Amino acid sequence: MILVLRTDATSEQIDHIMERVEELGFEPRPIRGEFRTIIGLIGDDNKPHAEILEAIPGVEQVLRILKPFKLASREFHKPDTVVQVGKVRVGGGHLAMVAGPCAVESFEGLDAIAKRVKGAGANILRGGAFKPRTSPYSFQGLGEKGLRILRDVGDKYSLPVVTEVMDTRQVELVARHADMFQIGARNMQNFDLLKEVGQARKPVLLKRGMSSTVKDLLMSAEYILAEGNDQVVLCERGVRSFEDSTRNMLDISAVPNVKGQSHLPIIVDPSHATGRPDLIPPVALAGVAAGADGVHVEVHDCPEKALSDGPQALLPDQYDKLMADVRRLAQTFGKALG
Amino acid sequence: MILVLRTDATSEQIDHIMERVEELGFEPRPIRGEFRTIIGLIGDDNKPHAEILEAIPGVEQVLRILKPFKLASREFHKPDTVVQVGKVRVGGGHLAMVAGPCAVESFEGLDAIAKRVKGAGANILRGGAFKPRTSPYSFQGLGEKGLRILRDVGDKYSLPVVTEVMDTRQVELVARHADMFQIGARNMQNFDLLKEVGQARKPVLLKRGMSSTVKDLLMSAEYILAEGNDQVVLCERGVRSFEDSTRNMLDISAVPNVKGQSHLPIIVDPSHATGRPDLIPPVALAGVAAGADGVHVEVHDCPEKALSDGPQALLPDQYDKLMADVRRLAQTFGKALG
Amino acid sequence: MILVLRTDATSEQIDHIMERVEELGFEPRPIRGEFRTIIGLIGDDNKPHAEILEAIPGVEQVLRILKPFKLASREFHKPDTVVQVGKVRVGGGHLAMVAGPCAVESFEGLDAIAKRVKGAGANILRGGAFKPRTSPYSFQGLGEKGLRILRDVGDKYSLPVVTEVMDTRQVELVARHADMFQIGARNMQNFDLLKEVGQARKPVLLKRGMSSTVKDLLMSAEYILAEGNDQVVLCERGVRSFEDSTRNMLDISAVPNVKGQSHLPIIVDPSHATGRPDLIPPVALAGVAAGADGVHVEVHDCPEKALSDGPQALLPDQYDKLMADVRRLAQTFGKALG
Amino acid sequence: MILVLRTDATSEQIDHIMERVEELGFEPRPIRGEFRTIIGLIGDDNKPHAEILEAIPGVEQVLRILKPFKLASREFHKPDTVVQVGKVRVGGGHLAMVAGPCAVESFEGLDAIAKRVKGAGANILRGGAFKPRTSPYSFQGLGEKGLRILRDVGDKYSLPVVTEVMDTRQVELVARHADMFQIGARNMQNFDLLKEVGQARKPVLLKRGMSSTVKDLLMSAEYILAEGNDQVVLCERGVRSFEDSTRNMLDISAVPNVKGQSHLPIIVDPSHATGRPDLIPPVALAGVAAGADGVHVEVHDCPEKALSDGPQALLPDQYDKLMADVRRLAQTFGKALG
Repeated sequence: MILVLRTDATSEQIDHIMERVEELGFEPRPIRGEFRTIIGLIGDDNKPHAEILEAIPGVEQVLRILKPFKLASREFHKPDTVVQVGKVRVGGGHLAMVAGPCAVESFEGLDAIAKRVKGAGANILRGGAFKPRTSPYSFQGLGEKGLRILRDVGDKYSLPVVTEVMDTRQVELVARHADMFQIGARNMQNFDLLKEVGQARKPVLLKRGMSSTVKDLLMSAEYILAEGNDQVVLCERGVRSFEDSTRNMLDISAVPNVKGQSHLPIIVDPSHATGRPDLIPPVALAGVAAGADGVHVEVHDCPEKALSDGPQALLPDQYDKLMADVRRLAQTFGKALG
Repeated sequence: MILVLRTDATSEQIDHIMERVEELGFEPRPIRGEFRTIIGLIGDDNKPHAEILEAIPGVEQVLRILKPFKLASREFHKPDTVVQVGKVRVGGGHLAMVAGPCAVESFEGLDAIAKRVKGAGANILRGGAFKPRTSPYSFQGLGEKGLRILRDVGDKYSLPVVTEVMDTRQVELVARHADMFQIGARNMQNFDLLKEVGQARKPVLLKRGMSSTVKDLLMSAEYILAEGNDQVVLCERGVRSFEDSTRNMLDISAVPNVKGQSHLPIIVDPSHATGRPDLIPPVALAGVAAGADGVHVEVHDCPEKALSDGPQALLPDQYDKLMADVRRLAQTFGKALG
Repeated sequence: MILVLRTDATSEQIDHIMERVEELGFEPRPIRGEFRTIIGLIGDDNKPHAEILEAIPGVEQVLRILKPFKLASREFHKPDTVVQVGKVRVGGGHLAMVAGPCAVESFEGLDAIAKRVKGAGANILRGGAFKPRTSPYSFQGLGEKGLRILRDVGDKYSLPVVTEVMDTRQVELVARHADMFQIGARNMQNFDLLKEVGQARKPVLLKRGMSSTVKDLLMSAEYILAEGNDQVVLCERGVRSFEDSTRNMLDISAVPNVKGQSHLPIIVDPSHATGRPDLIPPVALAGVAAGADGVHVEVHDCPEKALSDGPQALLPDQYDKLMADVRRLAQTFGKALG
Repeated sequence: MILVLRTDATSEQIDHIMERVEELGFEPRPIRGEFRTIIGLIGDDNKPHAEILEAIPGVEQVLRILKPFKLASREFHKPDTVVQVGKVRVGGGHLAMVAGPCAVESFEGLDAIAKRVKGAGANILRGGAFKPRTSPYSFQGLGEKGLRILRDVGDKYSLPVVTEVMDTRQVELVARHADMFQIGARNMQNFDLLKEVGQARKPVLLKRGMSSTVKDLLMSAEYILAEGNDQVVLCERGVRSFEDSTRNMLDISAVPNVKGQSHLPIIVDPSHATGRPDLIPPVALAGVAAGADGVHVEVHDCPEKALSDGPQALLPDQYDKLMADVRRLAQTFGKALG
């Protein structure tokens, strides 16, 4: 950590700062420049009280050097983590192809979609039973009934299943039915929920928040890892921006950015990122070309009757075509599906 | 609602669209233009299935006309809602002056701060017992012990107290000790939590999410109101932006923007918005001048020893000066404190 | 165009609105709903006075249906435009591989770099002679001398050359030396400059502004096309965002988004988008996978001695490796280089 | 400046770095920590070659300490600069009240508006003769004829006049007619134009770019000051954000943020920031309360017939009311108009 002092810091202030940082367990190394003094601190940047240094009179800025996450960092764990979801491996050259409707609506509906996405090559089935909806008047999901349908359809097609958990009180129930928890973008910093899924020892699909930096995302993963659960797959699903012709903006550079800093797998979700079926396939391919460990796509066989987010779903035929292209790309780059 | 059809929509598609919208309970009124057809739909925009119209083949865009929130809207309820927090009124010309440390650290610490902010004119005491921290290694709050201290200090100085609730499982506990719930920015779309505080029948301070639009904020308020609790105070606390010299960017226009559309009071939080003590007072005054119903400021008597967010707290002397300016402004615009 | 009237619009206001829109040459078609009236306007959305409709009392919102650009739109010109830069074709399945240093520094320096990028497969040479620098104290480019060096080196290696033009007064000079103008992100809405290069009848590489929407970008292209110059290649180079670990955020969905709406080619610039050599190759490949018509990359053989933007340049060896991957991708998707 | 080295930097790399920084004129002071080495550099951060340090192998990050602007900084020039526009003073407690139509449309039109805004208390008249329009098909301004009208009307009401200059070739012409140049948001980084107005020795109203940081704004001011012209008034006019119910987002904290770092005056422009007449007055007042040195507002007596941006103009009666409030605020805070 480095303290940059104010140009007008007095020598009394500097003495006080030196004392305080020693009290906090750092070894201070001042450098007196022409215009101002900086103080290098030898010690662990991640001490809990580190942030308060900025509040000491005479300090203008605190510059952190060490990354604030540890268990999630590649410095801590060099090789790629491979997450196991049922029989499917994610990471380390294995691509997760997650597909399914936004929400579970009925057994027949999900069955028809699962059949098609399995045929196209998907290896994980998704479907929401608890739905985070902007409006209290929108369809909120089938709840436990939806979880049962998802489990049954997953079993029928030998597809492990992932579904969103929105509240700490649902964790146990969801764990009984699903192979993987999904933490949605709106809950990426619901820290109690992160701790709870960290203790539940099932793999977690952690989506990046709409205004979260890459560092924030890795810090949220750290919450799960700190509970002893290292089975975390990250997901870039687009962030908020001023561009108004797409739902969000997929930060494609987040894929190699995460992979450079962390050993955790990361997949992309072009459905939520773009909100437009015409843009989903090219953005999915871009994700794979950038090194993503998989693609998460919403598929519905009758978007105009979907109970939520119909407009952003691919039709099964469109998904077939996308998967054919993904396969060619995977082959070009020496990756395997699942 | 208005459907804008694609320029290449076929007459079969148009017939199908007309049928579907009638099935969904709307009365369609087509307008055939030179280049394309649009269809005006007579009926309630807020029907749950409305969004799926965009997924009908031949439809390019769906334009909503009605606002998606109802109970929170000024069209529904013309007069300003006045929220009662203990004996303090917020809204309708009454300003809430919320002040206190980021986190409750000890009885003595909070007592000293409360004495000063009460003296300066604050009318609601704040302090976190459950802290949403980006890092799992940061101080997470004193929990129930913190709630008790907050209650005792509030009682000692006759100040109603507000504190953050982060998880549905904490609602009952927090309700026992606090006069008002705070829903933090990271939980603005934690819908289960919104429903729970909606049922708890205590006033709620609802902070805008870091990447939430004004409409999103009002929709989240609608979740609380839909449970029968209309005692909601909104809070503009800055949104994420590219500007890197401040922590967030306070959207000053959100104040009159909300007040035009909704009857709910709205206050500003310049502490979280700027993260810089030098910017807190001018931004607080700007909020009042723009019509805000109060100001939320973090105050600490020794920021360099604060366990969280010390650098963004005002010193008690700085708060005294700010309150003197707020009083002059309030007088200029005919507002009363509390 | 559609006018959405206020819920409290009086019948006098509605009469006045009907008269005004007729005066402006539109045919009004009112639809009276339960809560409010909307008026569909038959006529050309692009009339110059259209925007003022929003200012008529009683109008709440004006919804445009037609796209505001015409010459740049795919509705106007279905097939892909192929832009000819020297002997190189860009668009319609032909990929532009633009490479070179940020700034032209010397003949020897550029010669060494050009030799390497030509060897790797680049087909257009870039290099700045006029540099838009944030600081007046930074290196501002060699000016005309730089243009001459660029021309000579381009000729030596049979590479057409592209260079930035920053000011209308430089257009003639740049046109004498370069094969293609570059309009930088900061000048995307320098409308006088757009008109000037539109009249110059040389191909233009138009970079998206840091806070411009896709629509804004196409409107700026429209300025050039409206002067009779249809040889425009667009460039996605990242937009400003809150993410602070990369220089900008490349909007990958802009590639298919532009290609759906416009016949103009679009390339990606991962150098300016990411500002980090480790992220440039994966983001470049993502661009090609998403359908981009080329890649613009800065290459320098000694970044630590570059006079500008050294940190974001690839080394020649890194560029070799990237081009090998681009070739495999191009083959996978049936594209040709140049 | 501080170099943060990579954790895996070799001792050869460190030696090379030490040599290079000495070559570049800095005195290096290494601090060897537990995990990595940092090197403090004694010397001037603003040397032109400073940025290339990041490209030296083994360097992970370069942290600048000194501000990159000098002439614009308050450290360089402590007292507030007072800019003289005709007989009106701006800054140092004097408020500029700039008002007028978006575009000059006719003598009669401008005359009628000028009469009203003068009556209300405006002290500088604005009006565009060269208009930067997103669409090439929109009204582009009256050009020289517009400048003449502006001059004549300004003289008639003894109001100094400000108008936008968009191109270096217009500088001389505009200087002949106007008392102050306006550099619009889209041209904030048109560096040739900044140099040209820097040499013209007339006051300049420099608007913040839509995606420019406060530092970028001050760097652009530095371009003008570096040419010897210190008569620069900055203007916060809103930045691009994800909020879609307002045209831009006014960064209210930019006002005190600029005033802390720079001696230059700064005003706010709520017209362009919000784009909505209902939000202009409260946001204008917020600006004054935050310490702005003036307010820039568009006023039109018949917005529905305005040739550009009618919907964001105040009516003269609304402007009267706003000015009455501004006067009370100014009095409260001890400021004078003009």
